Amino acid sequence: MFEIDIYRNRRKALKNKKLKGIALLPGNVESPMNCLDNTYHFRQDSTFLYFFGLDFPGLTGIIDFDNGKEYLFGNDVEIEDIIWMGPQVSLNENGQKVGIENTAPLSKLYDFINQAIKQGRKIHYTPPYRGENKLFLEKLLGISAIRIDEYASVELIKAIVDLRSIKEQVEIDEIEKACLTGYEMHVTAMKMAQPGIWEQKITGIIEGIANSGGGMVSFPVILTQNGETLHNHSHNNYLEEGKLMLTDAGAESSLHYASDFTRTVPVGGKFTQKQREIYEIVLAANNKARELTKPGVTYLSVHLAVAEVIASGLKELGLMKGDIKEAVKNGAHAIFFPHGLGHMMGLDVHDMEDLGQIYVGYDDETRPVDQFGTGYLRLGRKLQSGFVITNEPGIYFIPALIDKWQKEKINADFINFEKANEYRDFGGIRLEDDLLVTKEGSRILGKRVPIEPDEIESIVS
Amino acid sequence: MFEIDIYRNRRKALKNKKLKGIALLPGNVESPMNCLDNTYHFRQDSTFLYFFGLDFPGLTGIIDFDNGKEYLFGNDVEIEDIIWMGPQVSLNENGQKVGIENTAPLSKLYDFINQAIKQGRKIHYTPPYRGENKLFLEKLLGISAIRIDEYASVELIKAIVDLRSIKEQVEIDEIEKACLTGYEMHVTAMKMAQPGIWEQKITGIIEGIANSGGGMVSFPVILTQNGETLHNHSHNNYLEEGKLMLTDAGAESSLHYASDFTRTVPVGGKFTQKQREIYEIVLAANNKARELTKPGVTYLSVHLAVAEVIASGLKELGLMKGDIKEAVKNGAHAIFFPHGLGHMMGLDVHDMEDLGQIYVGYDDETRPVDQFGTGYLRLGRKLQSGFVITNEPGIYFIPALIDKWQKEKINADFINFEKANEYRDFGGIRLEDDLLVTKEGSRILGKRVPIEPDEIESIVS
Repeated sequence: MFEIDIYRNRRKALKNKKLKGIALLPGNVESPMNCLDNTYHFRQDSTFLYFFGLDFPGLTGIIDFDNGKEYLFGNDVEIEDIIWMGPQVSLNENGQKVGIENTAPLSKLYDFINQAIKQGRKIHYTPPYRGENKLFLEKLLGISAIRIDEYASVELIKAIVDLRSIKEQVEIDEIEKACLTGYEMHVTAMKMAQPGIWEQKITGIIEGIANSGGGMVSFPVILTQNGETLHNHSHNNYLEEGKLMLTDAGAESSLHYASDFTRTVPVGGKFTQKQREIYEIVLAANNKARELTKPGVTYLSVHLAVAEVIASGLKELGLMKGDIKEAVKNGAHAIFFPHGLGHMMGLDVHDMEDLGQIYVGYDDETRPVDQFGTGYLRLGRKLQSGFVITNEPGIYFIPALIDKWQKEKINADFINFEKANEYRDFGGIRLEDDLLVTKEGSRILGKRVPIEPDEIESIVS
Repeated sequence: MFEIDIYRNRRKALKNKKLKGIALLPGNVESPMNCLDNTYHFRQDSTFLYFFGLDFPGLTGIIDFDNGKEYLFGNDVEIEDIIWMGPQVSLNENGQKVGIENTAPLSKLYDFINQAIKQGRKIHYTPPYRGENKLFLEKLLGISAIRIDEYASVELIKAIVDLRSIKEQVEIDEIEKACLTGYEMHVTAMKMAQPGIWEQKITGIIEGIANSGGGMVSFPVILTQNGETLHNHSHNNYLEEGKLMLTDAGAESSLHYASDFTRTVPVGGKFTQKQREIYEIVLAANNKARELTKPGVTYLSVHLAVAEVIASGLKELGLMKGDIKEAVKNGAHAIFFPHGLGHMMGLDVHDMEDLGQIYVGYDDETRPVDQFGTGYLRLGRKLQSGFVITNEPGIYFIPALIDKWQKEKINADFINFEKANEYRDFGGIRLEDDLLVTKEGSRILGKRVPIEPDEIESIVS
């Protein structure tokens, strides 16, 4: 467990942001699967975890910016429930653990908020992403759940993003733990990548490894021989010789920090020449991104440099043509690399995505680009020491996209469609590491999951 | 996949229930973990699955009782999304698969419902258990999400419970598949029950087995050396020699039918004499329940007969005393057996719990008993051929409960508190099978998970 001071200091840092009024920070409640009492694994809200650290349902934290006071609201377990749930730590004791002196039952929160409303004080909250918390805020604030997002506090969001973007050493340590579990998941998947195996079989096993580590998966596992489908959550194929298995998977540490890795391996253990050629380009792109990653550069510029590496490599193979800088300027690479280079990572795999990507990934200086491909880049802004980010270039052959661009003659000066059509059955390759931006540059978090093609072949075989 | 007729027939059977108006049957949407786009494994609503069979988010089914028409509302994937999600089957094609001719975009559902409201037609729905569906119904019906449950249709609930209570052969086949996975989960857990192993480690591995089977866990795994805590979802202990590991776990088949088994094994593989004595009583109780289970008897009567087996066994060990029938009448057994004998099982592990336990487990003839212990019995009513139920007696030594009863002299004529206190560190034993009520009696579903104490010892060791 973290020490009490960590949470105190974070709340203090938030108070130093000079907001007026109060921050209303609800934790999550249980998330029902198929009835109210049959629930998914409990996942606490990340912002609540960051400031209050307590990992169980039904709590709300309050930070009063005007007088500096902090409160924790929640209900103690009743005597009858002890039979079902075992002896429980009281709310007050839990509050002590994270440095909160003022604790009270949830019913008192309604009084507290009512009084604040009557006094005309500003109540800051972040946009709720679960129906249950939308309804909770409706009950508390009298704002319709359907429109509750519109009244979320941009001031609070920006203050939180400021703090959570720079990872503390204790946070980096936790991410490293999540990386260890992620490593085990990926190496296990590689060993299982044999023809005839059901994708779901491998998926389940590596989800089990994540759960065994004390956390859970940091996002639903992507594991598919159709890697060209970027967000493929179907695992219904039986692996075939000659295909590539793409695995995008990570774990949470027990404190809910994420890891997020992608590897692509040849089913059965031997790359074809075509596969190895594309693989080497993606690997070069990944390495290039790491080399360029350092404080002061924008991740948008790294993304575009990587797009050039990819476009150059594809030009050598005859898949692209023309001037590479022009091609990238026109977004021609995006037919093969249609997504962004990476995103922030921390307590969430897409860190703080609930707060709004525009606040997390961009700033006044670096604005999102409205172009297919680069438009999907989640993180564009200037990097700072302490950021944790993913580095995940990829090359894909998406028949629907090839057909569309060919038909509409999009970037026809830069794409060799005839050649591209020879790769329709290729699938896709993505290689993803997690990086810490350091003072001088960047370093890979965790032990790097095997990535050299020869090493991959020796593990799969 | 089931054949088209299965779903048609079920909808037809619902229409034969002679309700007026329309049934509004929303499926589930994705369930956010820590932001809108990072979601748990999708779990479709069970009633939607029962009538419409389609296992993806964002669908709503309508059954018009007045003219017999059936509709499916949902949105087709847009071209842009194909890049991310791969080629998708259209809503219309999906509708065809389950015998629905009329499909339309979700926006048309609003028009449809508005018209029905204007015409003053009755709109039946079941109580939503997720915040998202509460808000969806608010938007559709104009009824506040916070009070939406109050307007749920008891008529519709009763009609659905009537149908879903009697399992079809295809449903029994699916439950058998879920049982096979459950078997593998339990035997794996048994083999791992060695001193020094972290409970979470075993939990994760068996969750992985459930996921590998194509479904997922049917409920959060209970796996603990503190089995006296009935709903213990903490897995933070390292197993100790001399303790019992209680595992209550099951899987879903790929069509989301459940299994639910409990076994209790000695850590390291050797029961102590005390453990074996209690174990034999629970095993006798389990076997007695199965023998008594047949159409026409109430499960309440089976529960009470099992309570007598338990009380008699405990009397022989000196833990209870006095007249056994009187003891059970007074609920004295409930200090050691404080829960119900079992529940319905099907598409939900606690089948149809979202519809209301009173409708699922009781009827006009058999009403719930207001007594500690028996009051927790989820299923009391007369059994019918085709019911699938769990049989899960247990004996626990719950220090908080022993202290409370001793202090308040509850059932002091029947409990030997001095002796009970010798068992304070014992934990608990529960043994659970899944039963199909047949024409003549009952049979265990799936291959019975090892239960004889000698067999258990040989597997663990």
